[in-house]
Amino acid sequence: METREVNWKALRQLCQQLMMREGMCEEDAYVCADNLVDADLAGVESHGVSRMTNYMKRLRTRVVDPCGRPETQKEYPGSLYIDGKNAMGMVAGHYAMRRCMEKAKESGCCFAAVHHSNHFGMAAYYTMMAAREGMIGFSATNAPPNLAPWGSSQKYMGTNPFSISVPTKKEPITLDMAPSVVAMGKIILAAKLGQKIPEGWVVDAEGNPCTDPEVGQYGTLLPIGGPKGSGIAIFTEILCGILAGAACGPHIHHFWKDFENPQNVGHVFWAVDIEKFCGLSEFLDGIEQMVAEMKGLAKTPGTTEIFMPGEIENRRRAERRAAGIAMSQSVYEELRILAEQYEVPFTIE
Amino acid sequence: METREVNWKALRQLCQQLMMREGMCEEDAYVCADNLVDADLAGVESHGVSRMTNYMKRLRTRVVDPCGRPETQKEYPGSLYIDGKNAMGMVAGHYAMRRCMEKAKESGCCFAAVHHSNHFGMAAYYTMMAAREGMIGFSATNAPPNLAPWGSSQKYMGTNPFSISVPTKKEPITLDMAPSVVAMGKIILAAKLGQKIPEGWVVDAEGNPCTDPEVGQYGTLLPIGGPKGSGIAIFTEILCGILAGAACGPHIHHFWKDFENPQNVGHVFWAVDIEKFCGLSEFLDGIEQMVAEMKGLAKTPGTTEIFMPGEIENRRRAERRAAGIAMSQSVYEELRILAEQYEVPFTIE
Repeated sequence: METREVNWKALRQLCQQLMMREGMCEEDAYVCADNLVDADLAGVESHGVSRMTNYMKRLRTRVVDPCGRPETQKEYPGSLYIDGKNAMGMVAGHYAMRRCMEKAKESGCCFAAVHHSNHFGMAAYYTMMAAREGMIGFSATNAPPNLAPWGSSQKYMGTNPFSISVPTKKEPITLDMAPSVVAMGKIILAAKLGQKIPEGWVVDAEGNPCTDPEVGQYGTLLPIGGPKGSGIAIFTEILCGILAGAACGPHIHHFWKDFENPQNVGHVFWAVDIEKFCGLSEFLDGIEQMVAEMKGLAKTPGTTEIFMPGEIENRRRAERRAAGIAMSQSVYEELRILAEQYEVPFTIE
Repeated sequence: METREVNWKALRQLCQQLMMREGMCEEDAYVCADNLVDADLAGVESHGVSRMTNYMKRLRTRVVDPCGRPETQKEYPGSLYIDGKNAMGMVAGHYAMRRCMEKAKESGCCFAAVHHSNHFGMAAYYTMMAAREGMIGFSATNAPPNLAPWGSSQKYMGTNPFSISVPTKKEPITLDMAPSVVAMGKIILAAKLGQKIPEGWVVDAEGNPCTDPEVGQYGTLLPIGGPKGSGIAIFTEILCGILAGAACGPHIHHFWKDFENPQNVGHVFWAVDIEKFCGLSEFLDGIEQMVAEMKGLAKTPGTTEIFMPGEIENRRRAERRAAGIAMSQSVYEELRILAEQYEVPFTIE
């Protein structure tokens, strides 16, 4: 795959400027751009600037409100019930997590649920905000259907990711995962490349095992651990859909195809102030000891290093900040076209 | 397997009386007995009265304090930091969840972390307390090591289960799961029965795939979804071990073998008052719709009904409450011996 080396700060500025051209304020556009570019830095390209064309179309058609201002509708010392006001999901998510952290500093813990929101990018972005300030962060979102409840072959729940992050003396430890064995993107890619896929990734429309990605890309993703992953996806749907007052799985409007109906995606966020439990300094010592112990364990055949959750992504961030992001020619081209269309300077190398 | 039909209320009373004979107060002994018998009612026999002999030995040796009174050490509107005072884990867990729920009624949400505790039985017991009062409950615990961080073949994290439960118009929907593909008990059972086990359950001490349960029972359990399940187990360890100020995986003393050193297990609990989000009545309607929609989806070949998490367990509870619990002759015999030893009347049929 042909790639171009791109400077992350210039890339962030480009995305910010593009979104401002659709009426977003400087601050909100920054939050969105920072989330997307952070995904590219971390190597999670599926949630990065490769989605800019779609985000821009959603802003342009006003199916997402560029000027939506999230609003707290109910507030208690440990809770926030928030209307995302159909803003970009990153704007609603950033607002919710920021407020959660403020309140957790007072109350020990705060849990926020957001409705009337949109695709919020990479879940880890929010949890790392908390970890960087000495707190534990949790985030989750629902999404259009891709997974079936256990026993069914028909999609209902989204690939509902969740993330949790904790501070360490160095970089946060961060889990960001979906309850499916793989992302649908992997199956679509295998179809493009003409490769077989292993059994256990996806079932066809009748619920039969499927190793042909041409069929599998229209099938239903399989959850990790069978009923366990299915259960996690159902509960994420319950928290982000029902508790948050948003839409549930099949009632969420399509991100790529529907430019008329707002998605009404829901999210939840949760922040805990470590100082109000064991204390931050004891926590950091405890984590340091745990990580050292884990890294010293016997390795499975072929393993060269035992990584903590999010450690590979943290290393990539550092590398790519220094050396640039290797961007596929096709994404580069999409951004160039957007820059031309919106008359924004295109200097990202 | 030979079984005896046992009356659940009589069984609960027997367990309560036995524990009172070791100095537990009436109320605490009731909470423990109720948790254990509820596991047997639900069909989770591994966490039921089959453990009574061990719990009694732990009380008798005073490695668990029969009179330990859990104590809140730090308290904020949304948080509780609790010393379990080496009481039975069920006593500490019940205290923590009860207080969490009280505070969530005021603050919207409360998160509790407990240290210096013990094996707390079935995680779902606590979350269903919350669901039965119109709240969402979450619980998790750490445990002695059985799982390796991804990339290692050496045990570190416990089979750390977590549970989440929500109310419905009928019975709660409840997920209670460990991040391993199967419980170690399944492998030990296969060894007893001389059966092979499928690849993917466990690895041997060198980290190689293992289908021989004789080897596997001394191996390391595999997590669901590879690094995903491993990540969940690590974060449960971080919350229940480090944040809660308790011991971490390999530093937790053994439940079956060590009667000198308190386990210092940690738990976390979390309660959310639905009324402070979408509202309970809207929530119950939303759940009803979601469940109806899921149950109406196309079924995979061989599936007769799509079950919600915990639904099978709820049905079993109702059946066994009415018809009795089918108890294995060996567990029955263990209880008979305990009753004799402690001079407690043995009438449980």
